[in-house]
Amino acid sequence: MSKPFADTSRLSLNQYTTHDWTLAEAAEGCFRAGLQWIGLWRDKIAECGLDRAQRLLRHNGLRVSGVCRGGWFPAANSAERQDRIDDNRRAIDECAALSCDTLVLVCGGLGDCSLLEARQYVQDGIAALVDYAADRGVRLGIEPLHPMYAADRSVISTLSQSLDIAEAIGSDQVGVIVDVYHVWWDPELFRQLERARGRIWGYHVNDWLRETNDILMSRGMMGDGVIELRRIREAVEAAGYDGPIECEIFNSDIWASDYDGVLRTMCERYLQYC
Amino acid sequence: MSKPFADTSRLSLNQYTTHDWTLAEAAEGCFRAGLQWIGLWRDKIAECGLDRAQRLLRHNGLRVSGVCRGGWFPAANSAERQDRIDDNRRAIDECAALSCDTLVLVCGGLGDCSLLEARQYVQDGIAALVDYAADRGVRLGIEPLHPMYAADRSVISTLSQSLDIAEAIGSDQVGVIVDVYHVWWDPELFRQLERARGRIWGYHVNDWLRETNDILMSRGMMGDGVIELRRIREAVEAAGYDGPIECEIFNSDIWASDYDGVLRTMCERYLQYC
Repeated sequence: MSKPFADTSRLSLNQYTTHDWTLAEAAEGCFRAGLQWIGLWRDKIAECGLDRAQRLLRHNGLRVSGVCRGGWFPAANSAERQDRIDDNRRAIDECAALSCDTLVLVCGGLGDCSLLEARQYVQDGIAALVDYAADRGVRLGIEPLHPMYAADRSVISTLSQSLDIAEAIGSDQVGVIVDVYHVWWDPELFRQLERARGRIWGYHVNDWLRETNDILMSRGMMGDGVIELRRIREAVEAAGYDGPIECEIFNSDIWASDYDGVLRTMCERYLQYC
Repeated sequence: MSKPFADTSRLSLNQYTTHDWTLAEAAEGCFRAGLQWIGLWRDKIAECGLDRAQRLLRHNGLRVSGVCRGGWFPAANSAERQDRIDDNRRAIDECAALSCDTLVLVCGGLGDCSLLEARQYVQDGIAALVDYAADRGVRLGIEPLHPMYAADRSVISTLSQSLDIAEAIGSDQVGVIVDVYHVWWDPELFRQLERARGRIWGYHVNDWLRETNDILMSRGMMGDGVIELRRIREAVEAAGYDGPIECEIFNSDIWASDYDGVLRTMCERYLQYC
C-alpha cells in the first residue's frame, strides 16, 4: 500500500469545493493554506476576467491543475452541436491563456437524443477538437461521471467507455480524468486503471457518504465516506500518474461553511486518507 | 422492433408501487384492474400472514411474479452473515408457500466490509442457498442495483457482475432480475442481456426521470422518463424471457396518489411504452 503523502505539494483545490468564493478569494485562500495548485471553473474565470485571473494566480503562486468544464456535446440538431464545439474551442483558449494543460470534459447528457446517438456525438465532438487542442498544448480529459448523471450530465459513465473513446480517436491529446466519486463502485475500476496507463490527465478526490440522499449535493470530504482512497491512489500512480490531485466536493453543508476551515480540513484529510 | 403488447396478461404490480396498500388492498386492486400477477414484499406478507395471503391471492386470481426481497448478505462478522442466510431460507419458504418460483435478491451494501469482501460475501451467501432453494422449486434472481446504491443497498451494480456470480456458482437455480431503472445507462447492457440468455428470472419496468433529485424516491412511471423501454424489452425477449413484467416504482408522489388511478395509468403506459 502507498504511503501517506508527506506534504500537500500535489493537492489542488477545485474551486467549486468553495463554491461561493470568487476566483480572487479562492486564490488568496489557497495561498493562506499553502497550496500550489487550483482547479478553475469557467463561470468563475469569466466573472473575474482572464487577465486578472492570470495576475491573481501569479501573485498567489498558483498553477492551474485543470479547467472545468468542456464537453456537453450531445444536442438534437447539428447547429447546436457546432455551437458546443465552438464553445469548447474557447475553453481550450482559456486553458492555454492560464498555462493549464488540461481541459476537463463533462461530456453531456442525452440532450433529446437516444443514448447511442448521444454517445456518438460525444466521440465526434472530441474528435473535432483534437487538432485545435494539440496546437495550443492542451490535453482533453474525458471524465466519466457516475451513472446517476447519465440522463442530464454525462452519457459517459465508466472509465472503460472513456478509454474506448480515447482509443477510437487515437490521439495522444485525449485521456481521462479519474474522480473517485464517479468510479469507486465500478467492478472494472482496477482493470481499467491499468488500461489507462499513460492516459490519466487528472485525479480528483472526495468521498461517498453512506447517507447520500441528494443526487448532486451529497459528496463528502475525504475520510467521511466509504471510498478506499489509498487503494485507488495506488492504482492511479501505478498507471503512471504523478500530477496534481484535485479535491472537488459538491456539498451544500460544505458550501455553507467557513472556507478557510474547509481548506484546513481538506489538507488534513488529504494527508490522512489520500 | 417488438410490437406493443395487446393486453396486460404479462403485467404484474410490484406492490411497493402502491406502497401504502396492505396485501389485501393490493390484491383487490389488481383484481379490479384485471391483472393476473402481483409482486409481493416480505414485510407486507408478514403483516398479512402467509395463510391469509394465499387465500387472498387465490380469491383474486393472482399469481406471484416474485418475492422481494432476499439478499442483504454482507456483514462484518460471521454470526451475522449466518443470520442473513437463515433469513433467506425463510424467504425461500415463503416463496414456496405462495407458489412463487422467484426470490428477488437485493444483495446488500458494504455493511462495514470493504467492497471486495462484501462482494465475496454476496457470492458465498447465494452459494449457501442453492440446494435449499432447488429442493423447494425456488429460483434465486440476482438483481443488480444502480451504482448509486452500492454503499447502502447492493454492492452488485451491473448485469455483468450478476452473471459473473451466477456463472461462478454454476447452478441452474441462480439467474438475474433485470430492472430497467438500474441498468438502462450501462454501456454493456445489450451485450450482457445476450449473455444472460436462459438466466433471466424477472423483468421490471418503470422510468428514469430527467428531474431526478432524491436517490431513492424519484423513479418514474413508464413513459415519463428517458429509458428506451421497447428496445430493452426486445433484448430481454431475445434472451428468452417470456415471463411476467413487474412494474416497480419508488416515488413519493405516486405513493401519495389514488392507487386505482395508479393502476389504470400503469396499464395504459405498459401497453403504450413497454
